[in-house]
Amino acid sequence: MAKNKKQKVKRPKALPPRGFRDYFGAEVTERNEMLGKITDVYQRYGFDPLETPAVETVEALGSFLPDVDRPNAGIFAWQDEDDAWMALRYDLTAPLARVYAQFRNDLPTPYRRYAVGPVWRNEKAGPGRYRQFYQCDADTVGTPTVAADAEICGMLSDTLEAVGIPRGDYIVRVNNRKVLNGVMEVAGVLDSADLSKFEAERGIVLRAIDKLDRLGPNGVRALLGDGRKDESGDFTGGAKLSDEQADVIMNFMDARRDTGGATCARLRELVGGSDMGLVGVQELETIAELTDVQGYGADRLLIDPSVVRGLGYYTGPVYEAELTFEILDDKGRKRQFGSVAGGGRYDDLVKRFTGQEVPATGVSIGVDRLLAALREKGRMDSRANGPVIVTVMDRDRMGDYQTMVAELRNAGVRAEVYLGNPKNFGNQLKYADARNSPVAVIEGGNEKENGVVQIKDLALGAALAANITTNEEWKAQPAQMEISRADLVAEVGKMIARADG
Amino acid sequence: MAKNKKQKVKRPKALPPRGFRDYFGAEVTERNEMLGKITDVYQRYGFDPLETPAVETVEALGSFLPDVDRPNAGIFAWQDEDDAWMALRYDLTAPLARVYAQFRNDLPTPYRRYAVGPVWRNEKAGPGRYRQFYQCDADTVGTPTVAADAEICGMLSDTLEAVGIPRGDYIVRVNNRKVLNGVMEVAGVLDSADLSKFEAERGIVLRAIDKLDRLGPNGVRALLGDGRKDESGDFTGGAKLSDEQADVIMNFMDARRDTGGATCARLRELVGGSDMGLVGVQELETIAELTDVQGYGADRLLIDPSVVRGLGYYTGPVYEAELTFEILDDKGRKRQFGSVAGGGRYDDLVKRFTGQEVPATGVSIGVDRLLAALREKGRMDSRANGPVIVTVMDRDRMGDYQTMVAELRNAGVRAEVYLGNPKNFGNQLKYADARNSPVAVIEGGNEKENGVVQIKDLALGAALAANITTNEEWKAQPAQMEISRADLVAEVGKMIARADG
Repeated sequence: MAKNKKQKVKRPKALPPRGFRDYFGAEVTERNEMLGKITDVYQRYGFDPLETPAVETVEALGSFLPDVDRPNAGIFAWQDEDDAWMALRYDLTAPLARVYAQFRNDLPTPYRRYAVGPVWRNEKAGPGRYRQFYQCDADTVGTPTVAADAEICGMLSDTLEAVGIPRGDYIVRVNNRKVLNGVMEVAGVLDSADLSKFEAERGIVLRAIDKLDRLGPNGVRALLGDGRKDESGDFTGGAKLSDEQADVIMNFMDARRDTGGATCARLRELVGGSDMGLVGVQELETIAELTDVQGYGADRLLIDPSVVRGLGYYTGPVYEAELTFEILDDKGRKRQFGSVAGGGRYDDLVKRFTGQEVPATGVSIGVDRLLAALREKGRMDSRANGPVIVTVMDRDRMGDYQTMVAELRNAGVRAEVYLGNPKNFGNQLKYADARNSPVAVIEGGNEKENGVVQIKDLALGAALAANITTNEEWKAQPAQMEISRADLVAEVGKMIARADG
Repeated sequence: MAKNKKQKVKRPKALPPRGFRDYFGAEVTERNEMLGKITDVYQRYGFDPLETPAVETVEALGSFLPDVDRPNAGIFAWQDEDDAWMALRYDLTAPLARVYAQFRNDLPTPYRRYAVGPVWRNEKAGPGRYRQFYQCDADTVGTPTVAADAEICGMLSDTLEAVGIPRGDYIVRVNNRKVLNGVMEVAGVLDSADLSKFEAERGIVLRAIDKLDRLGPNGVRALLGDGRKDESGDFTGGAKLSDEQADVIMNFMDARRDTGGATCARLRELVGGSDMGLVGVQELETIAELTDVQGYGADRLLIDPSVVRGLGYYTGPVYEAELTFEILDDKGRKRQFGSVAGGGRYDDLVKRFTGQEVPATGVSIGVDRLLAALREKGRMDSRANGPVIVTVMDRDRMGDYQTMVAELRNAGVRAEVYLGNPKNFGNQLKYADARNSPVAVIEGGNEKENGVVQIKDLALGAALAANITTNEEWKAQPAQMEISRADLVAEVGKMIARADG
């Protein structure tokens, strides 16, 4: 063994870092196409693009301040030469806060901006979970009016239809943190005169309802009361609410009725005399009215108190877009596709920087989730749109072949000459196959003499090939035809149209 | 003084890291538009998109291996939790090399890919020099044929015209490293039988000619001979070539003649009996032929031995796109705009990873330079395309106003309701001004009653405002008109068309 050991050159591994991946061909163009449709809607709604750098100071990012032992917890951070900590942004909201604080005197008020781009998380990667992914946000900064929230709910609906989710396959659900606060007041775990009271209980309540999707009503109920033992036997302490108190909270999540009006009426009952709760209900009513006059009916937009995700973070309206069509999960069971976007109102956007409260409301679309949904619905032409391949029969006539592709390209047809070693014609066709080419063009010496070329319908050819076994048959098949050289652009165009149709 | 000191809350600075900047509104859309036009051409030429992550292992990036003292020299690098070094990519070629090495068995040969995205350099920032900027590359990997180089030269020409540089305002220049090698052989500083000989001299020659733009012929000449003292008095040692040897090199850079044919003939003389030199001339002739049959005449593409940038790096054809129109420099002097793209053939793309030589050729466009050129030529509509603003005269009728913008948006018009505090109408118009709005829509109680709305041509209004001093005049000016509510979409559309025209 030792004898066979060769002096090995130490070569770098050809791999991206753990948790990162590459995107090829249609993966890139499909995402860009979808993002283009989304930002067209954002743009039409008057939002302006903002592109911040990938890198921010850790100080400006906040909340993830590096500690000495694990400077990278959650984010990718490093020290600049002057020892300042820098990091890759982990979302698009933190940079918005920095920009708004920095330029607040020059920006219009309200400031309506959208942003699209990758963000980075220094987290454990897993199947389908990457450490770099896209976000696509729109936020209205600097106005408290609930009309801004209503507008974003409507825009979210328009956006989903613009990318290709048909009406009926999605629903935008709206809830309000203020209503929950009112309910907590009624349940006796919030004292508006002294917010420090019951803080621990409210924390447990918020965490509990945030787990409604995962634990179901019984699990949440247990956490509102004495606590809950999970399957592994671990025990999570509860908020120790009485049954009556817990009922109030549970009733809130269960308050959806057939119409927005009925739901709001039910919420009014639940928040009783809580001023904050009534303000919240009023806001939901306004959102319902404003979206209603614009034609967003119950088939698109619902007041739904069971939307609990993010209630702990947001301060007013909370909204979520769910895709309602069914897919099969890993175990072959049917389930709804689920959430693809969410957002809400948050009122402390720039307080860290300026000390002032600036109200803001915004939405973030889960780009990869929405792309997956569009592929699921067959809304993406995942058959890559390959180029026409002009094959090389005679390597001295490269100019002739280049002239052909120039003609095709000038007519808007994606085309290229085969640039590998032309000796083996089979390799040229294999290449065309690997590129998903719709058409191959062939011009040998005889064709050149006769002023003709062969064009080969590769899509049709592939379909036929399954049933053809001999060369004779191959030649006889209708997927290849001889045309006049002068008709190249027209005939290739027809063949592509046939392949697309 | 000390008495006035207040307990200050330590707040983060609202600034991006040094050398980074934000891009707002039209800066984002204009760049995206230009990149879209470029990638449309790349796509039509059969190139496929590839998007690699921003982060690579330092090992895979190579060439910038961090040393212990200054791990970040040139790149932004940090250690992952398992102590592996990661870094932000500094260009798009190093990730291409990693991808090609990783996926070479699955990728088509040749592999034609384009890539667009930011890259990061840990360098001193300066005016107009940022540490994050865009690159836009196209490369053909895995084929030695010079037809691939010719194709990229033609594509570069098409690309410049597609983004809006008119023919006559640019030129693509082509040179070849092999010709220079031949010339060096003739000059006696290259022995093809023993490449280790004269290595130091060749290094000095390459660095000298790379400085032709900056030092001029005399400076280069000095560096080819005994050396050169610069203005500061510093002395750079020369290659110690004899006058005859230096003449050969200088003649090479001066070999351009009126036609490509004449230039190639002159180069043939210069490379004399050097086999490698003759191969290089042959390659230039082939590029000239192949681009010529496709109609790329001397007004677009030139064989030009004075293109010296990158000759030290590339191994075969080298190409550069220059914009030839004049601009005024910082000191008000006229000068040509200069280079906006360059590339060439390099044959060691993946050797570091696999040990195999893989030939490749590619181009990189300087995105910011080209954008600056387009702005210079007035090819960018830098007047931001602002939204129509529907003003709020009566805050209880928000639904009416939202309905108006919904109608406008459905007709494809960018529009929004003013969402700030509507109390002060002047602020609403100031907002419209800050947003570059073409039109403001006004519907007070009287208008509502009469079924009309006022629309205000803000572009015209601004032009008129300079000459109007009284309110009466303001009201009389033709920039505002009353229309039927039913005609809103049609009349606003007309007004925008007038503003655009």
